Amino acid sequence: MISGNLKKEFENLLGEKNVMGDEVTRMNYAYDAAVLDPVMPALVLRPDSSEQLGAAIRLCGEHGVPATVRGAGTNLSGGTIPYKNGVVILTNAMNKIIEINEVDMYAIVQPGVVTADFAAAVAAKGLFYPPDPGSMKVSTLAGNVAENAGGLRGLKYGVTKDYVMGMDFFDVEGNLIKTGSKTVKGVTGFNVSGLMIASEGCLGVFNEITLKLIPPPRASKCMMAIYDSVAEATESVAAIIAAKIVPCTLEFMDNFTIRAVEDYAKVGLPLDAKALLLIEVDGHPAEVADDAAKVEEICKKYNARDIHVAKDEAEKNKVWEARRAALSALAKLKPTLVLEDATVPRSKIPDMVSGLDVVAAKYGLSIGTFGHAGDGNLHPTILCDRRDEKEWHKVETAVKDIFDLALGMGGTLSGEHGIGIAKAGFMAQEVGEQSLSYFRKIKKAVDPKGILNPGKVIGD
Amino acid sequence: MISGNLKKEFENLLGEKNVMGDEVTRMNYAYDAAVLDPVMPALVLRPDSSEQLGAAIRLCGEHGVPATVRGAGTNLSGGTIPYKNGVVILTNAMNKIIEINEVDMYAIVQPGVVTADFAAAVAAKGLFYPPDPGSMKVSTLAGNVAENAGGLRGLKYGVTKDYVMGMDFFDVEGNLIKTGSKTVKGVTGFNVSGLMIASEGCLGVFNEITLKLIPPPRASKCMMAIYDSVAEATESVAAIIAAKIVPCTLEFMDNFTIRAVEDYAKVGLPLDAKALLLIEVDGHPAEVADDAAKVEEICKKYNARDIHVAKDEAEKNKVWEARRAALSALAKLKPTLVLEDATVPRSKIPDMVSGLDVVAAKYGLSIGTFGHAGDGNLHPTILCDRRDEKEWHKVETAVKDIFDLALGMGGTLSGEHGIGIAKAGFMAQEVGEQSLSYFRKIKKAVDPKGILNPGKVIGD
Repeated sequence: MISGNLKKEFENLLGEKNVMGDEVTRMNYAYDAAVLDPVMPALVLRPDSSEQLGAAIRLCGEHGVPATVRGAGTNLSGGTIPYKNGVVILTNAMNKIIEINEVDMYAIVQPGVVTADFAAAVAAKGLFYPPDPGSMKVSTLAGNVAENAGGLRGLKYGVTKDYVMGMDFFDVEGNLIKTGSKTVKGVTGFNVSGLMIASEGCLGVFNEITLKLIPPPRASKCMMAIYDSVAEATESVAAIIAAKIVPCTLEFMDNFTIRAVEDYAKVGLPLDAKALLLIEVDGHPAEVADDAAKVEEICKKYNARDIHVAKDEAEKNKVWEARRAALSALAKLKPTLVLEDATVPRSKIPDMVSGLDVVAAKYGLSIGTFGHAGDGNLHPTILCDRRDEKEWHKVETAVKDIFDLALGMGGTLSGEHGIGIAKAGFMAQEVGEQSLSYFRKIKKAVDPKGILNPGKVIGD
Repeated sequence: MISGNLKKEFENLLGEKNVMGDEVTRMNYAYDAAVLDPVMPALVLRPDSSEQLGAAIRLCGEHGVPATVRGAGTNLSGGTIPYKNGVVILTNAMNKIIEINEVDMYAIVQPGVVTADFAAAVAAKGLFYPPDPGSMKVSTLAGNVAENAGGLRGLKYGVTKDYVMGMDFFDVEGNLIKTGSKTVKGVTGFNVSGLMIASEGCLGVFNEITLKLIPPPRASKCMMAIYDSVAEATESVAAIIAAKIVPCTLEFMDNFTIRAVEDYAKVGLPLDAKALLLIEVDGHPAEVADDAAKVEEICKKYNARDIHVAKDEAEKNKVWEARRAALSALAKLKPTLVLEDATVPRSKIPDMVSGLDVVAAKYGLSIGTFGHAGDGNLHPTILCDRRDEKEWHKVETAVKDIFDLALGMGGTLSGEHGIGIAKAGFMAQEVGEQSLSYFRKIKKAVDPKGILNPGKVIGD
């Protein structure tokens, strides 16, 4: 429990209104986007400056108060579920874009800047910030860095990791640690900036982040290829990559998902199609024309029964609207939605998709599969009702089967959703106990009392 | 000192011929490419398998023997200078390319693979490994990762860091730690793979590294722009970037360097030119044509007196031969060559070049400046004679001035040459004592006896 005296100290630091102890607020921050049990925090703090943030962390450090920093809470692995008797620290009052440097092509941001707002501000200056996690309309940049968020463009443009140049962050004593640089090249000191990416708030608390920007592509072309066979769709994916074409986006949707999306969004998807590929190529106009023609040729070779090329921006938006609707559309069908993201090398996508069919049949579960086929990161989505204990047990076992499938193909537990609490127990299966022990040594060294987002990634 | 018994143990592990204690061999590995005092190692070890490497590290760990792992020793900051009474571990017997996966576009390599050999093997499969450090003909891939080596293509293609997908490495107890993945996306566990990049052998010993490959550019065009004014050359650099053109290479050479290169390599450089830019654009043929035309236009606008566009591969090679000769050409002029690489945001290149002139004049030193102007990473090169104590003192002071210059412009101590011993003493100036202390906590946690390449990056 947090004593009245300590609460008073937080109030002195942050102002009374930014230290929230009422039940409704605490309940609001007891859970996140993962299907996991809520944990009530003792307090919710909302610092609105670097000074306040650093002082709040220092106080948590001094008093051994577990602290979970939370952006928008959109992670899907319980990374922002608080720890018992701990505090939640909100970053949404620290949402300033400090600098967008057009000539040196970087930006400096506070942790709570919303990803889509940032992308728009960058675009307004004629530059491009590629990472586009599904939650970008609400997710925050520090949350993206803490989770190493991916998105639809990972295939060509990489993920959040590829755009972090440097940062400063608070250690558990409230000291400001500086790592990385504003230069394209920089090797000064250990790459702690790299270590902080995907650390899920376990190693420090971001204060300011320097992000790399690039010139935007000059043109793009978007198409939808419709298949009567799942295998032919997934084999097209491998063939496109093998032809040395790297589309900026290459998404897959199975029939289950197609029907759910059409029912939800009415965008005119072919209900009888076994699978869809949504493909966008971008770059120089001539390159786009060449690549689009080759992609069409490959899709035809693999018996796509129809290929719609978006004629204009409106048609293009319609294609992506369909894709973006997938999660919401599936979520409508049953009370509980388990969105997996075990990831495989992209050539294994055909095997992974057939493997998922086997899992669905084995447990009699409804699994809709869609996602980033081009980078091997599918999102098999299990629809169920968590209140049905028997079914829930099947779901948990099916998820383990999916992990086994992915790891057996040289894949990984999580492509972009994080480890959090949800997958912490499976870490050793992928990396081994010795690696886990190395990770824990680092955690222990920089957070000896274990107050920074306890229980996440490496377990308790 | 290493006891006879311990030497025997190493011999039992590695075979007698791979445990070298003779003075000549030890002297050969007492220094590296940096201008620093040699330190004699007690033994030189040459494991030729993962098992031998792991066992050697474990033995060092158990007996508290300082271990410096060495690729080709081409780093320029003393990163491979051994520690007193320590061992040098050579990686050149572990030089196998384990896999080049064309469909999933990654490769797995042993630590001692030579960079250029790897790039050639990848090219033979129709793929591209972009990092091209100046020493790539002899440097090793693990050395590149340990130093986060850069090169000429950093501007467009990034540096070694951007191509490391994962690895396994030995910790100080000889355990094999697994981090990262073979998938485009992967967020399983802390990004320890990121931390290992640029760690200069202080945190673990690489066993196998997974590297990302990309499709090669379809075309390229190379040109040399000749200027009667340094300012106009450096302003062209900023203007090219501001026009949202990202050449794959954008190199600068001052008059001092031009004359040295021409004297050395006889490639027909204009001896009276105040500066040269060497520029290569690549990509789709139409993009290359467009970009090359725009670059020419910009160079003309900034009064380039002449622009030679390479007509064919032979002419292109001549341009790059001139650039590659710079270091050797300058090295011929005086007994000692101090090659700096303090780096600035690229818009500051004009200020940095004039600042270097001021430093040269202040101390009456010869400084030839060339390097990767497009990414802000110049290599001011001080020619001197280390045996001349008075001059050497001036050089050391001038180097400090160069650091101040770069840091004052928001730059960094080292763009690609590493911190090693040479710049360890300056770390706090850039990152502050608190950051340094955070770095040291990580080091202490994973290497409590401090035997992994002691003294490098964070000092003793």
